[in-house]
Order: sequence, then structure tokens, then C-alpha cells
Amino acid sequence: MKITAKNIWLDIEKIRETSPLIHNITNYVVMNSTANALLAMGASPVMAHAVEEVEEMTGIARALVINIGTLSESWVKAMFRAVRRAGELGIPVILDPVGAGATSYRTKTCHDLIDALSPAIIRGNASEIMALVMGETKTKGVDSSDPSSVALEAAKRLNEKTGSTVCVSGEVDYIVSGENVITIENGHPMMGKVTGMGCAATALCGAFAAVDSSFPAAAAGAMAAMGIAGETAAESSEGPGSLQVGFLDALFRLSEDDLINSIRIGELQ
Amino acid sequence: MKITAKNIWLDIEKIRETSPLIHNITNYVVMNSTANALLAMGASPVMAHAVEEVEEMTGIARALVINIGTLSESWVKAMFRAVRRAGELGIPVILDPVGAGATSYRTKTCHDLIDALSPAIIRGNASEIMALVMGETKTKGVDSSDPSSVALEAAKRLNEKTGSTVCVSGEVDYIVSGENVITIENGHPMMGKVTGMGCAATALCGAFAAVDSSFPAAAAGAMAAMGIAGETAAESSEGPGSLQVGFLDALFRLSEDDLINSIRIGELQ
Amino acid sequence: MKITAKNIWLDIEKIRETSPLIHNITNYVVMNSTANALLAMGASPVMAHAVEEVEEMTGIARALVINIGTLSESWVKAMFRAVRRAGELGIPVILDPVGAGATSYRTKTCHDLIDALSPAIIRGNASEIMALVMGETKTKGVDSSDPSSVALEAAKRLNEKTGSTVCVSGEVDYIVSGENVITIENGHPMMGKVTGMGCAATALCGAFAAVDSSFPAAAAGAMAAMGIAGETAAESSEGPGSLQVGFLDALFRLSEDDLINSIRIGELQ
Repeated sequence: MKITAKNIWLDIEKIRETSPLIHNITNYVVMNSTANALLAMGASPVMAHAVEEVEEMTGIARALVINIGTLSESWVKAMFRAVRRAGELGIPVILDPVGAGATSYRTKTCHDLIDALSPAIIRGNASEIMALVMGETKTKGVDSSDPSSVALEAAKRLNEKTGSTVCVSGEVDYIVSGENVITIENGHPMMGKVTGMGCAATALCGAFAAVDSSFPAAAAGAMAAMGIAGETAAESSEGPGSLQVGFLDALFRLSEDDLINSIRIGELQ
Repeated sequence: MKITAKNIWLDIEKIRETSPLIHNITNYVVMNSTANALLAMGASPVMAHAVEEVEEMTGIARALVINIGTLSESWVKAMFRAVRRAGELGIPVILDPVGAGATSYRTKTCHDLIDALSPAIIRGNASEIMALVMGETKTKGVDSSDPSSVALEAAKRLNEKTGSTVCVSGEVDYIVSGENVITIENGHPMMGKVTGMGCAATALCGAFAAVDSSFPAAAAGAMAAMGIAGETAAESSEGPGSLQVGFLDALFRLSEDDLINSIRIGELQ
Repeated sequence: MKITAKNIWLDIEKIRETSPLIHNITNYVVMNSTANALLAMGASPVMAHAVEEVEEMTGIARALVINIGTLSESWVKAMFRAVRRAGELGIPVILDPVGAGATSYRTKTCHDLIDALSPAIIRGNASEIMALVMGETKTKGVDSSDPSSVALEAAKRLNEKTGSTVCVSGEVDYIVSGENVITIENGHPMMGKVTGMGCAATALCGAFAAVDSSFPAAAAGAMAAMGIAGETAAESSEGPGSLQVGFLDALFRLSEDDLINSIRIGELQ
């Protein structure tokens, strides 16, 4: 099935109309900006990480977003409980392997999480996706040292191995699912100067997956919305501070015309 | 005693002049925005949650704000220590039951905290206040599924049971204390699209309670300042990103004229 | 060696060209704003605090920033591991003693960290620096009750005792290293109304120390960049909300001309 701007727009309308609850177990750095991105998109975010309550919270959510950006033992324990509960209930799980490859603890935690339950969508930058496939990579903390195209083969292998839709984000976003590779070429370089933009993209994958059971379509919608909102914000920004503010405004105001006129979606042959 | 705009203005002047230290044990999502809201109002925020130091920190504060938005075992332990210390010293405690009703862990923690010491003020949305009275509610994470008026009876019962001033926030804010019900009708719908606005309101209740021993007056002042700053910000905002920025600016610049001209305060008969 | 605007500009160029990875173990309140300040300056931030991975993360970083703003037992343990690893590898450590003096836990933790390894740079406000030397001070939470000049003698004693470059920030920033005291008089009072500006200054000390082995020069560069960006932002701000946004934009856009025309650097005789 070809994914069109029209499909994506219908998903955005569904998110805004139904305001799905998205349960995030995410990192401290981006909790606020992630919650605001989900709200601006029309979803309803909740953050909860205590082992005492994660399963109950996942149980009332429409998607579960796991982000290992500032992981530690008790959080990892909660992630597993939430992921298993999501598996039982058929709630889509989105994984952001922040900093995979930077430390073995991060890489191992991601492998274990994927083994526990293949996520609906895995979204990371090139370094992170390669680290999940090849083990060692020359990563630098949480920022990728490589363009996204370098990770395309790794994304295909990760998709084969896990069955998860794999999204490598960068100047071009590649969304890999079986034979199909969708490309989204929206976005602006200044977005890389704002912390948590990748994490927001992952959370938006959760919002789209909550209303669209085609996970490649969900990932494409999230990346397109992110990229177009970033472009709109960049037009009137003077730096990363105003970009971050304008991004939330643009996500909130994103219209069908904006989407149709600005989207650069394609397929690799 | 009738609460007037003039009373509220005097409280704001006291906050700005004395810059009371407000000890917050709050959630990860809103720590930054809460600290900024307190600073913009003129208060001095401190966040501290280690069992090793919470009692000492509460001991130098003028109010203690407890917010269970991302609670976990060690944090709950610290909350109890801080609350007991506040009780010994007569420091007002403000409770924000974030997500009460969404999980039983949240509801139970709130009940236990209230049993340990009746807060000066409990501020929540309709779902949360109803959950504290009725147990089960149809809540959706941390956002209320109901208008505030639906929770008025629950607020009255919670006030009767605990003696706490109970504030239900929403399109109309209801502040319940004994026979008196104060209403504040300031605010803007866009505020619901910014995470942590409710948490900021609770923190401001702490700032007002630090300078005004009438807790209904303190809650009314906080809700009026929040609402008017939100209205001012909404006038020149293009979405939730710029609203959040403009809100802090407006809180910082709030003048006596703004307050007197914009406040919509009333009493239920 | 005299530190000039030209030296500082060369450091800024190095940061922007090499984008050094800065490992932060910092507080929850400022993680987002600190990461954004480092990104706007051109550095690459990473936050990691799990005992399982801190040593590995420090090992790939160019500087380690320790900030005790919301410390607790497991975080303190991780701080020690990271600091010792930095010591082994010769990676500069920057310490922000947030709230030292406010509780004995904070003061003691700072002393123990300094005993484990003398930091390259210690940056705090007057109350904090005095608390590290004198034990008891009349502090109020995390904000200083004193002008920076009051702490100059304490800064000299702390520098003598530890060998660390000591930076007391305030209306005038004093950077003390042996006989030399550099002063930076940039900045704007509104910066005190935004949470985490001091923490951002400490993180920028890390970015400069990553590219300049003269730690007084690194601290001077960080304080000058902070102060000038704050001044630029204040010109077009209407309050602390817009100041915070404008600050990131100004840091990102800071040019050699801005630096040379605006810097107010001096030396105490």
C-alpha cells in the first residue's frame, strides 16, 4: 500500500479527534519537550516509570514509548514490565535506542528489550541503528557521527531480524519494513541543535501508531509532521531557542495544506 | 472574609518583596517549568528529594509543594518525611494529586499523604479530585475527561473530610473551604496544550500560601495569576510553544492594573 | 598569560569545529536547558548517570560536568565513579556545588567529591563557594543571598586548598587561580529569573575546558559567552520566558564582533 499525504492527514485528524493516551517511559532530558510535542500534535501524554504502576498505566494507554536516554536499573526493570504488558494487550511499543553503541549497557538493554518483544517501530539515528546490528560503532554519545544513508543496510537487517518497522532519521529519514523503504526528506539542520528532537519523533511515532495499525505509515506520518513543523519553525527562527518554540506552534497549527504542499515522501526502488 | 483583587495584589507584592523559598518535591516532567513559574512570580524555588536532606530543606522553606506526577518508592518515602517535618514546623503543604485515579498506586499514595497530614491546599483537575473521593473514575492519564463543575460535590466532600482547601481547576476554578466556594474564571483553552500548567498552578499556591495564611485566598491568588498570565500570553501566541514563553513573561510583568481589570472572581451562593 | 577576547574567540571556534562530547551528571531541573545551552554553543552533550555505564561514558567524553542540584544516593555513587575515571584519563572535571550550605548532605557531598579529585573548575554563586570554605552560611536554597564580591576571599582559600580554578558568579564573575583573579562583568539581572542559568554556565565551563587546557581561560570564556548572550537576549526580551529563548539563539549566533565589542573582562590587581 502506497502511503500518501492524504493517509497521513487522516491519521493527524484521528489523533486530534481521539487524543490517544501515550505512555512514555523516557529520559529526564526530554520529558517536558516530549510531553509538549505530543500535546501539540493532539495526543495525551503520560509519563510513569514506577514498577508499582507501569503495567496499570500501559493498560490504559494506546501506545507505549520506551526511550533509554537516561536509563538506570529500576527504570529498565519498569520498561520490561511495561513492554510485556503491552505485548499481552496488543498495544504497540515504540523503542528509541538513545545512545546505543555509546556504552555496552545501552546496547545490551536494547537487545534485551527487543528480545522480550519486537517493537512495532524502532526509531534511531544512524549510529544507534548500526550499533543494534553490528555491535561496535564509532558513536559519539547520543549524536550520530554518520548520515542516515550509511545505516540503511543495518536498518534492513534489523527489520529482518526483529520484524519491527525500523526508522533511521537524519537528513533523509528511511522507514524500512520488509521490501519497502519509504523516505521522508523534510526537516531542517537547525533541528539538530535542539535537544530531544529525535525523542519527540519517537513519541510522535507512538501517537500515529495509536491510530494507524500500519506501522510504516505511522512512522512516515510522524517523521513528516516533525520535519514539516521544523521547516515552518526554521523560517521565522533566529536560532535553536526560537526554533524549539516555533516547532511546537507549527505542530499544533499543521494543516492539510501545509502537509500536502510541503511533504517530500518517496520510496526506494 | 471576601477575597478581592486588592488582597491578591498585596500577596503578589509580598511574594516579590520577600521571595519566599518554596520546597518542591515534584515530577520530572515539570521541574524546569515549575521552577521558572515560581521565579517569574517572584518566589525562590528549590527542588530536593533525597531522604538524606528533605527534612532539612523543608525546614528552611516557607511552603512545601508535593506533586506525585512521576512518583516512585524512594520519592514517596521522601515526601512523607518532608510532609511530617512541615507538620512539625507549621509550614503549609500543597498537594497535587497528578493522575490520581489513573493507577491505584497514585490514588493510594495520595490517600496516605493526606492521612499523614491534611494539606493546606489540594489542587487537581476534576478527574483527580473525584478519584480522591470516589476511588474509581474514568480518568485518562493525567488529563481530566470532565469539566471542573462535575467535581464540585467531590471537592466539598474532600474538604469536609480533610479540612484542606480544595481547588478544582478547569475552565472555571472552584476553591472550596467550608461553606465558601470561590470561583475564578480566568485562563485560556490553549493552556491545556502546554504540559505542567496545572503543576505550575499548584506551585504558585505554595508561593501564595507562603505569604498568606488564608489558604482559600492563597489558592484564589494563584489561580487568578495563572489564568490572567495565560490570557495575556494567548493574545500574542501562535500556539502552545509561544504560549509557554509568553506565560512566564506575563507572570513576571503582571501589574496591579492587569489584575484588577482582568480578574473574574466570584462566589457560589 | 593574559586572557583576551581573541583567545576566547579561538576557543569558541574550536568548540564549534570539534563539537566535543560533554558528559553531564546533573540535576533534573536543568537537564534540558543545559543540553540546549551546550548544543547552542556548539558542543555535544550527553547525560548519563547509571553506575553501570558512567565510567564508559566518561571515557569517551572530553569533559565531565558534575552538578549536585538534585542529588541522591545512587547518583552520588555514580558521580564518584565518573570522577575517578576522569582522573585516571586526565579528563577535566567541572563541579557545580548547587545548594551547598543549604543542607549538610550537599555540603558534605561536595567536600567528598573534591577530596576524591580536585576539579579543574568549581563554579558556584557566593553562598555556595562560601559554604565550601566556611561550612555554615546563611544560604537560601539554591539562590545566593550575597553579592559575588563577598565570596572573593573564600574563593581564594578554596583555590589554595584544592588547586581548582574557582569561579564565583554574580553581577561580577570572579575567576580565581593562584595569584590571578579575572573578572567578567557581562550579564543581565533578568538571567537570575530563569532557572538553570548558573548550571548552564558550569556546563559551558566544561565545553571550554574540553578545548583549552588553561582552566582560568576556559572559565572566563564560558562566563563571557553566557553574559554576552544574556545581554543580547535581554535587549529584545519582555520577561524571563523570552529571555531563555533569546539566550539560546544568541549563544548560537555569537560572533567574534559580538564578543570583542561586548566583553568586559578585567583583572584584579
